[in-house]
Amino acid sequence: MARVYNFNAGPAVLPLEVLEEARDQLVDYQKSGMSLLESSHRGKEYDAVHAEAIANYRKLLNCSDDYAICLIAGGASLQFAMVPLNLLGAGQTADYINSGAWAAKAVKEAQIVGQVNMAANTAKEIPTRVPAIGSLKLTPGAAYVHLTSNETISGAQWKSFPKTESPLVADMSSDILSRPFDINQFGLIYAGAQKNLGPSGIALVVIRKDLAGRVADNVPAILKYKTFIEENSLYNTPPCFSIYIMMLVSRWMLKIGLENIHRRNMDKAAKIYAVIDGGGFYKGTAVRECRSDMNITFRLSSEALEEQFLKEASKAGLKGLKGHRSVGGIRASVYNAFPPEGVDALIAFMRDFEGKNG
Amino acid sequence: MARVYNFNAGPAVLPLEVLEEARDQLVDYQKSGMSLLESSHRGKEYDAVHAEAIANYRKLLNCSDDYAICLIAGGASLQFAMVPLNLLGAGQTADYINSGAWAAKAVKEAQIVGQVNMAANTAKEIPTRVPAIGSLKLTPGAAYVHLTSNETISGAQWKSFPKTESPLVADMSSDILSRPFDINQFGLIYAGAQKNLGPSGIALVVIRKDLAGRVADNVPAILKYKTFIEENSLYNTPPCFSIYIMMLVSRWMLKIGLENIHRRNMDKAAKIYAVIDGGGFYKGTAVRECRSDMNITFRLSSEALEEQFLKEASKAGLKGLKGHRSVGGIRASVYNAFPPEGVDALIAFMRDFEGKNG
Repeated sequence: MARVYNFNAGPAVLPLEVLEEARDQLVDYQKSGMSLLESSHRGKEYDAVHAEAIANYRKLLNCSDDYAICLIAGGASLQFAMVPLNLLGAGQTADYINSGAWAAKAVKEAQIVGQVNMAANTAKEIPTRVPAIGSLKLTPGAAYVHLTSNETISGAQWKSFPKTESPLVADMSSDILSRPFDINQFGLIYAGAQKNLGPSGIALVVIRKDLAGRVADNVPAILKYKTFIEENSLYNTPPCFSIYIMMLVSRWMLKIGLENIHRRNMDKAAKIYAVIDGGGFYKGTAVRECRSDMNITFRLSSEALEEQFLKEASKAGLKGLKGHRSVGGIRASVYNAFPPEGVDALIAFMRDFEGKNG
Repeated sequence: MARVYNFNAGPAVLPLEVLEEARDQLVDYQKSGMSLLESSHRGKEYDAVHAEAIANYRKLLNCSDDYAICLIAGGASLQFAMVPLNLLGAGQTADYINSGAWAAKAVKEAQIVGQVNMAANTAKEIPTRVPAIGSLKLTPGAAYVHLTSNETISGAQWKSFPKTESPLVADMSSDILSRPFDINQFGLIYAGAQKNLGPSGIALVVIRKDLAGRVADNVPAILKYKTFIEENSLYNTPPCFSIYIMMLVSRWMLKIGLENIHRRNMDKAAKIYAVIDGGGFYKGTAVRECRSDMNITFRLSSEALEEQFLKEASKAGLKGLKGHRSVGGIRASVYNAFPPEGVDALIAFMRDFEGKNG
C-alpha cells in the first residue's frame, strides 16, 4: 500500500493507527464474535465505547459538569437548524457573524427559524478575513451570538474570540481541538466530525446545560438538546461505528496531547505560509492575521497554472489540493492528523514547481 | 475467530462477506491510498458508492422515477419528526395507527408537530397484534396515514397493508426488504438502516416526489425532503461510510434476490414458530396471524426460567436473545442476514432446553 498525502478538506485524513485498529477489529470486535457494526447499542462492548468517547472529549475540552457532551447524528448542517430551534425564542433576536460560506449557511438556516441580526459581514471580502472583534454590532439581550471559528473554504480563522454578554455559540467544525481554548467562554460549540474528529455523519455538540432548558414545547424531541442530555445521547440508536472512530481519534489526541497537537499544527501551517510569502509566485487569499492553520488557501497567476499545479501534485501523491468549487485556487487542508512529512513533501513540491514555472 | 449467532434486534447481524470486504478495504480503499473514511464526498470513489447505493435500492424496491430515494443521517427517530414537519400542514390531521412501542413513538413526535387522529390502537393488547384493516377509523382528507410495518419489540407484523385514500406512510425499519411489496401503495416509507440495511445512524427514505412539495417555508432546509431530493442526498456531507456499508448490503441482496430472501425468512421463522407451537413449554406473545418473521417473541413459564434460558443460550453461542427491557421474555431477531444455520442451532437448543426443563 502506498499511502498518499491527503489534503482533503473533509472528510479528511485520519490517523493511520486509528484506521489500522478499526480494520483489525472490524469483523470480530474484541473477540465478541461479531463486528461493532452489529453490536447492540445497549450492550457492554458499545457501552464502553460510548462512555470513553464522551469522557475523552470532556477531558480534551477541559469542561466541567456545567456542560454536556452530546453526540448527534448528522453534521454541522443539522446544527445550523438545531441551534436556533433550541435557543432562539419567539420575539428574540440572535446575532450572527457572517465570515464566509459556512457562516452564511448557518445564517440562512437560522433566518428560517427566527429573527437574525447580522452583527458583522465579511463574507464577500477579498482577501478573506473574519471580522474585527471591535466591529461587531451586537444586540443587547440577544438570544446568542453565533460565529464560525474557521472558514474551511476561504481559509480564514478567528485567532481569539469575542467576549459577549449573550451566550457565544460557535461552529468549530474545521478547527475543533486543533488548539486549546476556554470552553467557559462559550454557551455552545458544535463540530461536524469529518475534519478533526472522525468520519462524516456525526457531530460533537458541547452545551452549557442551563441553555438546553430554553427550548419551546413545539420542538420535536429528537431535535431538542435536552433529550440528548437527559439520555446521554442514547435516546435513540446512535451512529455507533462513527462514535467508535471518534473515540479512537480521541485516544490518539490524548496520547499526543493538545498542546503538542497545537504546536505541530502551527509548525505545519507556518512552513507552508513561508513558501507562499517567500516570493510573488504564490498568493495567499486570506488576510495575514486571520490565516487559518487548518486550511491554507492560495492562488497562482492563472487558472491554467493552478490546473497544472494540481495535476503534477496529484502525480506526486499530494491529493485533494483543489480549492472549493465555489472559489477555485489551491487549498491545503492540514488537520490534526495530517502528518508533518506531508507538509515537507508539499513545500518541496511547491518550491520545485515555482522553480520550473516562476 | 468464532463467529457467534447474533440475534440482536438492531444494530443487527450483517452479511459476513460485507464485513470482510469493508475490512479488506478499510485502510486503503480501492488502492486510492486512503480510507473511504477519509475520502471526499465529492470525489470519484465516494461518488460511485453513492450512485450505486441509490440505484441498487431503487432496483430492490422496484420503484419508478415518481419516487426519490433519500439517504438521511439519523435513524427512524428523526423521521418521526421529519414526516409531520414535511407532510402535515397547519389545520390538517394525520391518521396514526398505534400498533406498539415504535408506532407510539411516531405518534408522540407527530403530536408535537401537529394534529393527530389515532386511527386504531392495539399498543397495549396482550397477546400483541396489529389492528385489523377493517377496524381503522380514518379521517376523510387526512394529510396521510402512518403505520409501523413491523413492531420490533412485540413481534407483530402487518401481513398486508390497508389501501388508503390519503398517502400511506410506513416506518419499515425492522422489516424493509425482508419481502417484496408494492411501493406504489405508499406515499413514503422510511427505515433506520440498522436491521436489514446496514449500520445505525442512517435512514433510507423513499418518497413520492410530489409529496415533498407540501412542506411549509418555516421548516429548516436540512429537515426538508425537498432538499434531499434536489441535491440527491448530497446537500451536506452524508454519512459516507454508513452509505458504503448499505451499498455493500444492497449488492448482497441483489445477488441473492428478494424472492429468495423472503423465502429464506419465512422458512427461518416457521421453524422457530413450529418449536414454540410444538408443546406448551414456549408461549408465543403475538397473535398467530400477525406474527413477525423478523422478531420472534416468546415467553417461558417464569422469569427465572427465561434467565436460565438466556444464560445457557449465550454459553452455546446464541447471543442477543433477551427481549426488550420494556417487556422482558425472549426475542429472536432473524433479519435477512441471519443465517439459517443459526436458526437450526436455536431450535436444537430450544428442544434440548425443553427436554431438560419441561
